[in-house]
Amino acid sequence: MTYQSPVADILFSLEHVAGLDAEIGAGLFGDLDWETVASVIGEAGRFATEAIAPLNRAGDLEGARYENGRVTSPPGFREVYRRWAEAGWAGVTASPEYGGMGLPHAVNFACTEIWNGASMGFALCPLLSEGALGALNAHGSPALRETYMGKMISGEWTGTMNLTEPQAGSDLNAVKTRAERVGDGTYRVFGQKIFITYGEHDLADNIVHLVLARLPDAPPGTRGLSLFLVPKFLVKPDGALGARNDARCASIEHKLGIHASPTCVMIYGDGGGATGWLVGEENRGLAAMFVMMNSARLGIGMQGVAIGERAYQHALAYARDRRQGRSASGGAGMSPILEHPDVQRMLMTMKSLVQAARGICHLTGVAIDRSFHAPTAEARASAGERAALLTPIAKAFSTDIGDEVASIGVQVHGGMGYIEETGAAQFMRDARIAAIYEGTNGIQAIDLVQRKLPLSGGAAVALEIVGIRAVAADVASHGGDGFGATAQRLQEAADALESGTAFLRETLARDPDEALAGAAPYLRLFALALGGACLAKAGLAAQYAPRQAGGTPPLGRVALARFFAEKLATAAPGLAQTVLSGGAALKSHEAALQEFA
Amino acid sequence: MTYQSPVADILFSLEHVAGLDAEIGAGLFGDLDWETVASVIGEAGRFATEAIAPLNRAGDLEGARYENGRVTSPPGFREVYRRWAEAGWAGVTASPEYGGMGLPHAVNFACTEIWNGASMGFALCPLLSEGALGALNAHGSPALRETYMGKMISGEWTGTMNLTEPQAGSDLNAVKTRAERVGDGTYRVFGQKIFITYGEHDLADNIVHLVLARLPDAPPGTRGLSLFLVPKFLVKPDGALGARNDARCASIEHKLGIHASPTCVMIYGDGGGATGWLVGEENRGLAAMFVMMNSARLGIGMQGVAIGERAYQHALAYARDRRQGRSASGGAGMSPILEHPDVQRMLMTMKSLVQAARGICHLTGVAIDRSFHAPTAEARASAGERAALLTPIAKAFSTDIGDEVASIGVQVHGGMGYIEETGAAQFMRDARIAAIYEGTNGIQAIDLVQRKLPLSGGAAVALEIVGIRAVAADVASHGGDGFGATAQRLQEAADALESGTAFLRETLARDPDEALAGAAPYLRLFALALGGACLAKAGLAAQYAPRQAGGTPPLGRVALARFFAEKLATAAPGLAQTVLSGGAALKSHEAALQEFA
Repeated sequence: MTYQSPVADILFSLEHVAGLDAEIGAGLFGDLDWETVASVIGEAGRFATEAIAPLNRAGDLEGARYENGRVTSPPGFREVYRRWAEAGWAGVTASPEYGGMGLPHAVNFACTEIWNGASMGFALCPLLSEGALGALNAHGSPALRETYMGKMISGEWTGTMNLTEPQAGSDLNAVKTRAERVGDGTYRVFGQKIFITYGEHDLADNIVHLVLARLPDAPPGTRGLSLFLVPKFLVKPDGALGARNDARCASIEHKLGIHASPTCVMIYGDGGGATGWLVGEENRGLAAMFVMMNSARLGIGMQGVAIGERAYQHALAYARDRRQGRSASGGAGMSPILEHPDVQRMLMTMKSLVQAARGICHLTGVAIDRSFHAPTAEARASAGERAALLTPIAKAFSTDIGDEVASIGVQVHGGMGYIEETGAAQFMRDARIAAIYEGTNGIQAIDLVQRKLPLSGGAAVALEIVGIRAVAADVASHGGDGFGATAQRLQEAADALESGTAFLRETLARDPDEALAGAAPYLRLFALALGGACLAKAGLAAQYAPRQAGGTPPLGRVALARFFAEKLATAAPGLAQTVLSGGAALKSHEAALQEFA
Repeated sequence: MTYQSPVADILFSLEHVAGLDAEIGAGLFGDLDWETVASVIGEAGRFATEAIAPLNRAGDLEGARYENGRVTSPPGFREVYRRWAEAGWAGVTASPEYGGMGLPHAVNFACTEIWNGASMGFALCPLLSEGALGALNAHGSPALRETYMGKMISGEWTGTMNLTEPQAGSDLNAVKTRAERVGDGTYRVFGQKIFITYGEHDLADNIVHLVLARLPDAPPGTRGLSLFLVPKFLVKPDGALGARNDARCASIEHKLGIHASPTCVMIYGDGGGATGWLVGEENRGLAAMFVMMNSARLGIGMQGVAIGERAYQHALAYARDRRQGRSASGGAGMSPILEHPDVQRMLMTMKSLVQAARGICHLTGVAIDRSFHAPTAEARASAGERAALLTPIAKAFSTDIGDEVASIGVQVHGGMGYIEETGAAQFMRDARIAAIYEGTNGIQAIDLVQRKLPLSGGAAVALEIVGIRAVAADVASHGGDGFGATAQRLQEAADALESGTAFLRETLARDPDEALAGAAPYLRLFALALGGACLAKAGLAAQYAPRQAGGTPPLGRVALARFFAEKLATAAPGLAQTVLSGGAALKSHEAALQEFA
């Protein structure tokens, strides 16, 4: 196993694709400098490569074990988690006031990729914890923040997000978990939650559950959901751990992948009521939880990038090593399979998809930072819209390509790819969840079309298209010959995106189903155009940037941009045509899906 | 579990897409009538649905077990295999002279889909056995045929294909297994083979291994490979089983899926030499084995169709049952998720891909039959070329969509799809091997471009394009309104196929790598055009055919054709553009794939 956290690639993308360097230079983050960012990300990469990555295979094989309400982590997880927490990694974006590093969200997203590339099963614990921390920070009372945040930022305690119930998955209207007012400011929580990631584990001393539940007098639907903090152990006034709360893990799931990560059925209150504290206002629980939605979804997008990168590295190493057949250009004897054009095609597909998705994620991450820190309210609002627009694309495209890339990785290995010991299959199994959780990719596509296209009367999308066209024009005017037909393919992709967008915006009001039939292909179309622009930007930067990554010749980044434009973004016009054909082909789905048996 | 073998769909496709009914009517198979075909396939479907399908989950969970050279099948497999064999299913195409049914290959391919849809892990045993039987039938000496064929056709004995070695996967030049002439007409075989499906098991009394090996004086490379029959138990002159041969299973692999099917490391001759008999001529072993290549590859294509169909049925049942959200057209309360356009899109994608792939496979199967039975030598040769041309498409497209459809099936289930108990994940794991074995799909694409496009100076491909255009013209002239833009999209796909073909034929001679860079997207393009034509043919037939399948309104088949044309075949022009961009984007792959670390 030769896996290395792709630190230089991440830094290049943050700097040249997402412009984080420029934002730092403009003072968006006070006196933060780029060298600090590079050093933090470099250190994360080192820790992940050396300490976390070696746990990945054993984590898959051994998995988390459940017995009598307790969950045991795979060997090594507990020790590495402690070291990870002690190094301060649970608090990258957290305020220094509570012991955090106070760094940009974009930096933390880079770290999220790094942890997940090393071991997705490990990295899920911090990822969920971070979500809980964010909600608590935004909506917790001063007392709750005081009691919990420091310990969560130090990683001594972790957090969970409890939304799903058997009958309430994508649709939280159906949540049945209930809460009663005790009268002393606390609540008693009763109910069952499922799919709770790291709902129980042995990595940390306490677990801070954020639980969506319904008060007795709450209105029906999601407007009647409140958010409660329910700790595994109650916390004494001096901060020490007290009694066990009435919250327990009843079982963990047997899953396709991420075996190291316990996916828990949680039971609240079957011993008389779990003690909870309200986070935010009564009946405003969803809003309190969803303040973190962009970040949480982008975090999942980073998982897609992360697994894709790891699968790519694994496949590349094999393709360089494995000899079969003789390539057209080869001499005597068998050639490394990397010399065969179809294997090159597979690896270039893997790498360019990963880098395109990473670029989109980084654009989104920097937009999130700008939405907090840009100098004017107008700039913050505009950045907020950009983040909102790009989030579903970053989440769905990155996780879709995570699956695709991991599957291509298996293919590059041939028969060995199907053997579990090789490791390629684990990436495919692990990656598969990311397109499902934190809002399925179908829901991301619907969100994009229904809620995001209308932002600022369509101006948010229009701005992206202008940006893509500008990159294409840059390539045309001063990209080298190595770019081939990149400029033309990108302009065509922008044309396709423009026509698809116009159709959906016009149709949405008239016939939502007509528009939503094209939501998923539209999201892919958007990502191909924007991802192509990200790679072209990187290629241009590599030609001209003073700070070259690791001495790599710029040719490589130009070639990736060209490959993506000429081989993958070529799908854009066909996707637009698919979108434009509307919902007519679905109208007879009942007859079509009848069994002809 | 509501899985039903899709008998009516299979019959409809054989009849109206592949024209088997017409071939039967024209006397291609003597006095065989369609009713016999329908009854055999119906009976296979019943047996598979009732007896085999229920084994599938336990087969995955328990898997084949290895201990001390012996392999134990999962519970139930042995009994159901015996019943399957006793019913005669191991001899569908075999000559009645040896106890076979003597039915068309196309009928057997239909059965192959049926067995694999019920349990791929189970069906692999017959599939490999059939390959060995075919090679033996074509090239075995009369004595070998007499000794082995009857027992293999009765299913009392099974067969295996031993090609792969650790250093010799896709490239058989590197085979090291060796054979020595004993002098009495027998040989001693020495070597190690890997990835031998059902190389050892407890389903049958004897296992007939066909082993590629090299004689001492053989020329290097594949022209020095001979094929040997090496039985697990030697057979006495009276046909009874004698001594154990020096052939043993050293271990079985731990795989991503098809757990019920033991994938064996086989050791030949480490006790002094395994006794073998030559099949065919010395040094002509590859030819002897590859006479079955089209059939073997098409059999794997059927596995893709089979798993796709099963994943589809599983997902459809869930989508009808599971309620989440309210559809635009829905009333109060939660709607079945099937009412959401994006879920309809997923299921229509699944079903139309499966039916398109099934159509292509059936066309190929009937071409194989015609290559044996057509009335004139010219017609047989032309059918042989069609079979050769379509085989790589049938294999690669069907198995690619098998993966895609199984993955969409997981997605339809949402979070439940990731839980193993749901069953959707098993289809994804099982399906994944089919794109790899029996020639990876990359190798299929190379075969298509390098060996098949030049057939008859390009006339074989040209004929397919004419056929696609004819279907499109039929739709335009007498397809109903329900076809939407089907005719236009199919003509565009045919245009794209024509331009991609012309480019590859021109380029191949000049610069093979330039052509092979586009091999995989070209294969997909071909399949979209041809698959779209298959669905359109089915839609037209449903409108007009006197023999309707199960009273289903023709609207359903028309809708599937329309969906495929408007939503999936729209990718064809972009794929052609990808092909036409040649290999330039791969030239700098070394720089692009360098780690930027």
